Amino acid sequence: MNEIGITVKKEDDMPEWYSQVVLKSGMADYSAVKGCAVIRPLGYAIWQNIMDFFNERISLMGVENAYFPMFIPESFFHREAQHVDGFAPEVAWVEQKSDTNERIAVRPTSEAIMYDSYAKWIRSHRDLPLRINQWCNIVRWEVSDVKIFLRSREFLWQEGHCVYATEEECQKEVLDILEEYRRLVEELLAIPVIKGEKSEHERFPGAKRTYTIESFMPDGKALQAGTSHNLGQGFAKAFNITFQGTDEKDHHPWQSSWGFSTRLLGAMVMQHSDDKGLVLPPRVAPTQAVIIPITIKKKPELSEQVLTKAKELEKQLKDAGVRVKLDDREEYSPGFKYSDWELKGVPIRIEVGPRDIENNQCILAKRNDGEKSTVNLDSLSEKVKETLEQIHQELFDKAKKQIDEKTVQVKTYDELKKAMEERKIAIAHHCGDPESEDVIKAELGGVTTRCRPMGEDQADEGAVCVHTGKPAKYKVIFSKNY
Amino acid sequence: MNEIGITVKKEDDMPEWYSQVVLKSGMADYSAVKGCAVIRPLGYAIWQNIMDFFNERISLMGVENAYFPMFIPESFFHREAQHVDGFAPEVAWVEQKSDTNERIAVRPTSEAIMYDSYAKWIRSHRDLPLRINQWCNIVRWEVSDVKIFLRSREFLWQEGHCVYATEEECQKEVLDILEEYRRLVEELLAIPVIKGEKSEHERFPGAKRTYTIESFMPDGKALQAGTSHNLGQGFAKAFNITFQGTDEKDHHPWQSSWGFSTRLLGAMVMQHSDDKGLVLPPRVAPTQAVIIPITIKKKPELSEQVLTKAKELEKQLKDAGVRVKLDDREEYSPGFKYSDWELKGVPIRIEVGPRDIENNQCILAKRNDGEKSTVNLDSLSEKVKETLEQIHQELFDKAKKQIDEKTVQVKTYDELKKAMEERKIAIAHHCGDPESEDVIKAELGGVTTRCRPMGEDQADEGAVCVHTGKPAKYKVIFSKNY
Repeated sequence: MNEIGITVKKEDDMPEWYSQVVLKSGMADYSAVKGCAVIRPLGYAIWQNIMDFFNERISLMGVENAYFPMFIPESFFHREAQHVDGFAPEVAWVEQKSDTNERIAVRPTSEAIMYDSYAKWIRSHRDLPLRINQWCNIVRWEVSDVKIFLRSREFLWQEGHCVYATEEECQKEVLDILEEYRRLVEELLAIPVIKGEKSEHERFPGAKRTYTIESFMPDGKALQAGTSHNLGQGFAKAFNITFQGTDEKDHHPWQSSWGFSTRLLGAMVMQHSDDKGLVLPPRVAPTQAVIIPITIKKKPELSEQVLTKAKELEKQLKDAGVRVKLDDREEYSPGFKYSDWELKGVPIRIEVGPRDIENNQCILAKRNDGEKSTVNLDSLSEKVKETLEQIHQELFDKAKKQIDEKTVQVKTYDELKKAMEERKIAIAHHCGDPESEDVIKAELGGVTTRCRPMGEDQADEGAVCVHTGKPAKYKVIFSKNY
Repeated sequence: MNEIGITVKKEDDMPEWYSQVVLKSGMADYSAVKGCAVIRPLGYAIWQNIMDFFNERISLMGVENAYFPMFIPESFFHREAQHVDGFAPEVAWVEQKSDTNERIAVRPTSEAIMYDSYAKWIRSHRDLPLRINQWCNIVRWEVSDVKIFLRSREFLWQEGHCVYATEEECQKEVLDILEEYRRLVEELLAIPVIKGEKSEHERFPGAKRTYTIESFMPDGKALQAGTSHNLGQGFAKAFNITFQGTDEKDHHPWQSSWGFSTRLLGAMVMQHSDDKGLVLPPRVAPTQAVIIPITIKKKPELSEQVLTKAKELEKQLKDAGVRVKLDDREEYSPGFKYSDWELKGVPIRIEVGPRDIENNQCILAKRNDGEKSTVNLDSLSEKVKETLEQIHQELFDKAKKQIDEKTVQVKTYDELKKAMEERKIAIAHHCGDPESEDVIKAELGGVTTRCRPMGEDQADEGAVCVHTGKPAKYKVIFSKNY
């Protein structure tokens, strides 16, 4: 691990490659507490860009941010039966007890603590819809196989919790949020996703319906990138949330919750990065372009000219709205700097030397495919902005192609088995029985249904389940997952 | 508590008044866990504005944001002796143990976990200065007399942790940050502060020097609004942080840490608010102006005209960069809306009715003093922006005047005692002995030295200590505090 560059190939050993990219790029680090990572400035700046993008979007929907306590009394979990079963094994507790001598949990999710407040705040239909989101840390203790960003005891996320007077409004906004998730992940992170509904087996504990955006990594494993739940009225009943309707009678409202986490950073790394290190999607990259001046020690005057020009270009690009950095460190060679910024994933490298200045040009190198081109300095800003958009599209298209190539339709259980052994993504008919999913998961080493793809979820007429042979209800996607 | 407005006067019962303002304005709420508050959307939006302002400032200084784990192994606290003594009584622990069967704390501050990483990351003088900040939740369990924002088991804060090769750099930036804190609190929140150094007695556990910005509430109590610590080399030695200098030898670096918390929201409420509710300083107010259309039920056509005009004005103000809201709720009367927005602290109310439209004017009412004026609609945006700045200045000046009026110079212990009984802020000479401060604190019911005001901290020649009669070393400020 002391070598600077990545020492294994993505193809050969993806888990080791992933760790090296995350650690050596400076995205994150292990900490002294098992299962808890440090998000270093590079990783956090990406998370900040994700937060800024998403805050703007949900604010347009009328969602407001708030902050609820991290500590939740044990009894609150028990109010919703499925909810407590779903989370009990993962909860960390504090040694200290509450005033009523109750155990206190560190939040594994915040439904329980938030809905206790909602029950106090909501009185009338005038208080609805109530739309609140929070950005916070979450703890799920029982984590095996720790992997930075993907699986850790503590992580950061957003959780939105909305309350509606009608089922229609609720269901509509559950899907609106799913579309916002697609937009965020595809349009900011260049990761293609499939929108769909989760099966009963994979549903959020306590939800009526769970929707997901599923991404698929280069190894064929799915990574759930965000979920949006229609909670129905179950939590409202459990937490005694009621509102007086226009009919002057009391009703239970409908609720939604939805979240994505710093796992997205892991998905981004795995999807796009390569054997040289991180590859950052341009729209979320904290630094979009780096300028490397090619100076010559023996010719200080010429070097001074190059540096002056490089500073000019930096200003020009900044003014054009590009997040640019000038690497004028004297103690490192241009070659070292190239590798360093490749490791850190900066989308565009701009090289400028004495001869370039003479010709009023520079070299522009794309991180994603190494392609170099000569660019006239008069059109540099324009060209950089164009190229950033081009890189975004290329990353997206490449990932999409990989997924398409890995996706197969299977008709029999043997075909499903074979597809899973070959680490493919399989589309198959399924009966919808949770028991069948349990058996498949056990028999095929962790294979689960990822979702019923939206708009293509209905079984063909007369089709039978790939596993039970019963009449099929749905078309579903099967794969292993992170 | 079911009445909508504030039912006690600030003068008569400040603690009860404070609770009512915080709760009824919708800033925050109690939660089911004692000592943990819910920061509601209004409160969180103010905190967000504070974060945005401060992030921009520290980014100019080269500080980057990151995120470190919330969990800290017990042994880490013990590495710095004063640090563990300072925090041990307040720490919450999780029931689960580490892999090495060690107790795990929920962070009461992050020196210990961060500096463990710093020791790994810092190798050479090229890695310095290292400037990292994080925004996170903090837990200090042993809290008596819980008060939302001011004293709670969990709160939000920022903590900056920087590392330098030289003492000079370190000390310079410790003071630069103090100046940034002054700027934030005075220029964003309109709260006057006094910059100064803490006495040995009041220093941060493990710090070499602690600097503070002290604010003073209308009841004469001080509220520490932010602190900036020169940690010296103590933590570097305890956590074994070294760097290879340009001399190719290993050295311990110098460190700083600095923080402010959601207590600032409490200070803001106490400083400016009044018997009608919250008074928000304009620069941080999520909504700076609210438009109330005066419609007349019996004249729907005229009302429609008013609404149309009100929407026009909303757009005009938005375009001018004012954070404005149009309150077009039909189910509430204008009078109800006036009180509602007064309770919520919006700096400017704009009333517009049929007659106003005829005269191309509107009424502009200032929240801080109730002053009303008639404004020509053609110059509305300009007038609103001017008035927002005027309100900021008026709030600041009023607070400053209160503080000045409460500040007295005392020469004898009897005078100090009397000043403290009268809830004044006393400036006195002191010998600097921590033991003397212990005695004063015990004898005068919690009175502490708040700081030695910067630039005015040196004792007059021949002056003696107000308590011990020994030769005085410093001029200090005494008061009770939050």
